Amino acid sequence: MAVLPPSMSPPSAPRGFRVGTARAGIKPGAKRKDLALIVADVPCAAAGVFTTNEVRAACIEMAKARIQQGTAQAIVVNSGNANCLSGAQERAWSEQMADAAAAAVGTLPQLVLPASTGVIGEPFPIDRVVPAIDLAARSLDRSPQAWMAAADAIRTTDTFAKWGSVEGDGWSIVGIAKGSGMIHPRMATMLAFFATDLAVPAPTLQAALHEAVRRSFHRISVDGDTSTNDCAIALAHPQGVEATPERVERFAEALALLAQQLAQLIVRDGEGATKFVTVAVTGARSEEQAEAVLRAIATSPLVKTALAGSDANWGRILAAAGSAGAGIQRERLTLWADGVKIVERGARAPSYREEDGMRIFAQAEFTITLDLGLGSASATGWMCDLSYEYVRINAEYRT
Amino acid sequence: MAVLPPSMSPPSAPRGFRVGTARAGIKPGAKRKDLALIVADVPCAAAGVFTTNEVRAACIEMAKARIQQGTAQAIVVNSGNANCLSGAQERAWSEQMADAAAAAVGTLPQLVLPASTGVIGEPFPIDRVVPAIDLAARSLDRSPQAWMAAADAIRTTDTFAKWGSVEGDGWSIVGIAKGSGMIHPRMATMLAFFATDLAVPAPTLQAALHEAVRRSFHRISVDGDTSTNDCAIALAHPQGVEATPERVERFAEALALLAQQLAQLIVRDGEGATKFVTVAVTGARSEEQAEAVLRAIATSPLVKTALAGSDANWGRILAAAGSAGAGIQRERLTLWADGVKIVERGARAPSYREEDGMRIFAQAEFTITLDLGLGSASATGWMCDLSYEYVRINAEYRT
Repeated sequence: MAVLPPSMSPPSAPRGFRVGTARAGIKPGAKRKDLALIVADVPCAAAGVFTTNEVRAACIEMAKARIQQGTAQAIVVNSGNANCLSGAQERAWSEQMADAAAAAVGTLPQLVLPASTGVIGEPFPIDRVVPAIDLAARSLDRSPQAWMAAADAIRTTDTFAKWGSVEGDGWSIVGIAKGSGMIHPRMATMLAFFATDLAVPAPTLQAALHEAVRRSFHRISVDGDTSTNDCAIALAHPQGVEATPERVERFAEALALLAQQLAQLIVRDGEGATKFVTVAVTGARSEEQAEAVLRAIATSPLVKTALAGSDANWGRILAAAGSAGAGIQRERLTLWADGVKIVERGARAPSYREEDGMRIFAQAEFTITLDLGLGSASATGWMCDLSYEYVRINAEYRT
Repeated sequence: MAVLPPSMSPPSAPRGFRVGTARAGIKPGAKRKDLALIVADVPCAAAGVFTTNEVRAACIEMAKARIQQGTAQAIVVNSGNANCLSGAQERAWSEQMADAAAAAVGTLPQLVLPASTGVIGEPFPIDRVVPAIDLAARSLDRSPQAWMAAADAIRTTDTFAKWGSVEGDGWSIVGIAKGSGMIHPRMATMLAFFATDLAVPAPTLQAALHEAVRRSFHRISVDGDTSTNDCAIALAHPQGVEATPERVERFAEALALLAQQLAQLIVRDGEGATKFVTVAVTGARSEEQAEAVLRAIATSPLVKTALAGSDANWGRILAAAGSAGAGIQRERLTLWADGVKIVERGARAPSYREEDGMRIFAQAEFTITLDLGLGSASATGWMCDLSYEYVRINAEYRT
């Protein structure tokens, strides 16, 4: 299941990048392509945001260390196996993957960022991955379709490929992402890769990516879990359009917008999702307070299962908000579902009729707005429901 | 579903207390008794631990305020409606409930502690509750069976009534509890009531109850949610056995043990539970570190769904541990399921065979032990799985 987006046109492809894909057969029997290469014509400014999970894959440590130098030319990424907790060879396998990519595209190994996603704790089939990297290098292509193919190759339980782009004055940003379970405000089983032909320098790119991730991937929740292999990486081509201050400002906004679009696609494809719900927390004393309440609502299994049942169980939404420990006051709360006011001053609104709430909650998409009545800060995020199907997918993941 | 305990004999009934029950019909059409009265012969030392949720029911505020005086004589509790977010009358309804109980048993209203559990946000049927309180008062009884009837009357989605007792030298503690969903280390939709005929003074009782709750109800997880109406209350009869220092020490241990027994019963009856899993985190630098890791594992939806699928997906257990941000080191981790070593130095143990893990995870009850390799502190808790049935119960809760 998934709550499909209205439409997805092919993305813009920024100049100076080529993308290739191949089928390594990492999961035995899998028929899809499962390996992608993103290659810039020259070393690029690079930025990254990585999982904070203390149990991290070697590829994350490698990519993080390499990005700290501020430059990268290629990303090599596979689905089907996370190469995490896979044994003594884990780091060597990630290095071999990057080395093979460097050789295949003609760059230095330290300019290649490896990424892996999929099952944890299984031996990594490096013997199938290396030849596939050569194959992917031979398919390198500058077209929007190549980015779409890469978005497809990095899928695991995703039911559709996720991409997007934003255009500026003569430059663009393309982004691809994967993720449908283990999704959480603190990063999750997701990968996102961005490329732009605006010549943004590395420190600026890092700041913009951090802010974009904070306002997008950190504000979604499928199940509240975090993963060992997450990252968001951005590459900016140094020979692209000149990064004037005005353009950099526009770029940062565009990157955040694109990250939000991708984050929303991830929620729409949440494992077993039948609802796509926007949660807006308004009237907060600070953005941090709004985010804390947002997170408590968006990760509550009781809110999520009520959504699965199309039940306008607004008491659970308020209970979840109260559990955040964010200093809210019950008697100041107002709650709406789309245009229907449900709660006023912390109790059922006199005008509220159960059938109005039920009508909204029966929809596949709607917005919940909780006003805290304390100030003027706000935060918006996106959540899906917790359905039977989520349980089935995750109970049977390895079978 | 539930993972039933081996056996439950009738509890000991401490001297000086009477218990009554009645059917108020709070949920229209419900056939079970849904109201209970616990009454001491004289005002008792009283202690309580209450939900930290910022959206709290009026009855919680009332009971908390009254317990701060250190004395109480009666508890009146209903299931079927939490009388929370139920409108302008909420506080008045809880007061009427306590007033009716005070009149029926012949004590002062401020010595009565009200408690309610059930659906949030619905008008409270006070007109049906008050006559039932009179009825319950007429059934007051000193027998173990009366305690069992009260345990039954406070059930909501619980599939079995939960009680227990521990005996000392001439004194005993009885405890009853309810809870099967919204269960979380930070307190959840649960109520627990304890009574003893050891004459423990109120401050000692409060300290013992706090410690008991910390080691029991705060260490279980069904779904990670917290509720608006939770409380654990203890009454100690002042004319009971003399509370010598030795007895008080023994009492504190016995109360913690009893609270753990009740907490385990709650997990066994977790909504939709098919597994009862003990999680032991050992080798920690501090008990706080062990508790943080325990909590991350026990609340992880991905660990819970893997359990539902009987899948020994140990990578998810380590990933959950890493997400706690508690300062663990991957390469020091050792993981066992019962006697089977799965992970050694942060990677699959050479001796581990998948079929051994699968055999353990196929059982309805087993123990997961994660050694952090950092120190000598530890914490043990209990969790259940997240099954289809959990989703069904919570998606359809109000239908």
